[in-house]
Amino acid sequence: MIKKPAKTSLPIHDLISGRWSGRAFKTDAISREKILTMVEAAHWAPSCFNDQPWRFLVWDKNHDADAWQKAFDCLDDGNQEWVVDAPVLLLVCSDTEFSKRPGRANRWGQHDAGMASQNLHLQAVALGLMTHPMAGYDKARARETFKIPERYDLLAMIAVGKPVDSADDLEGRRKERELAERIREPVGTRMFDSRWDKPIT
Amino acid sequence: MIKKPAKTSLPIHDLISGRWSGRAFKTDAISREKILTMVEAAHWAPSCFNDQPWRFLVWDKNHDADAWQKAFDCLDDGNQEWVVDAPVLLLVCSDTEFSKRPGRANRWGQHDAGMASQNLHLQAVALGLMTHPMAGYDKARARETFKIPERYDLLAMIAVGKPVDSADDLEGRRKERELAERIREPVGTRMFDSRWDKPIT
Repeated sequence: MIKKPAKTSLPIHDLISGRWSGRAFKTDAISREKILTMVEAAHWAPSCFNDQPWRFLVWDKNHDADAWQKAFDCLDDGNQEWVVDAPVLLLVCSDTEFSKRPGRANRWGQHDAGMASQNLHLQAVALGLMTHPMAGYDKARARETFKIPERYDLLAMIAVGKPVDSADDLEGRRKERELAERIREPVGTRMFDSRWDKPIT
Repeated sequence: MIKKPAKTSLPIHDLISGRWSGRAFKTDAISREKILTMVEAAHWAPSCFNDQPWRFLVWDKNHDADAWQKAFDCLDDGNQEWVVDAPVLLLVCSDTEFSKRPGRANRWGQHDAGMASQNLHLQAVALGLMTHPMAGYDKARARETFKIPERYDLLAMIAVGKPVDSADDLEGRRKERELAERIREPVGTRMFDSRWDKPIT
């Protein structure tokens, strides 16, 4: 596995530091147990009113190749190029209404689904896997193909697999991207102290 | 610390399993180093185009008591009741536009901010702290008080502090809530296999 720990000014937990969105997967199957562990971790995120507004649709190539292919076909060309090796695809959706309060809009659904997503990404790291969330797919096609009710917002698709052991066998742009440094804007551009736009230090 | 690990059918990482949203905090200050570690962990979440659409506003009672009080005053009465002891409050917001593509709407902002939130919650657990995200606060008042531009969506407020050592010194409803079992709907109601609404097993 290619390691690219986050370059932080203070040490953060290695599960969080070690997660990154690579593109070079082995084609090896992921066990059903690992898949279930990932979604169970996602399910234990917090949520407004404990409403659990997330929905994850899982496509496992080694369990239902036809469904996996249909999901793959929704991805943009640029993503298909590298996702082709990933044995598992997911789609995270959020409920726009509270399931426990029918008819009432849940304005925290996307945020809460994001918290569940991050649990899934981190649990994957703990299992020696790699995830890569993607915005680049045809939402209308995915909704139509998988008959996703209008009530649910379609958020990220996620590719999951075992990461390659090293970049040695990669070439060209594929190698470059896999070895590229992980970057973030300075923390103070996003994290404010007491007042809006005042960088925390 | 009161431990209430998630009851899962398969073992999940203890950072994820051990996180829960309690209400009984010690009034002890949180070091600036720990606060910075939490926001740095949040900042290393993934995001669409790596746009990092999250914004976290931090109020530290032991650093700027006046600002902390103004934030506290935005909370609903039911939350104020127990948040009063928490030395740190946060507000997570999301950018509705891509910062790198001005004028273009970012429909993943809330989801990505949720991923950052979850990193913060889990990093807090790793630091021996407890977090509690809240929807119950006056958004209009918070936006007005802290001059948050319309461009940003206001999502959860978060209380952070050291959890009490045990429930022994708590009474009545406060004790009951702190010891209440953590519950989730069955995994299959949220996690689907190949087709919408088909429970994963």
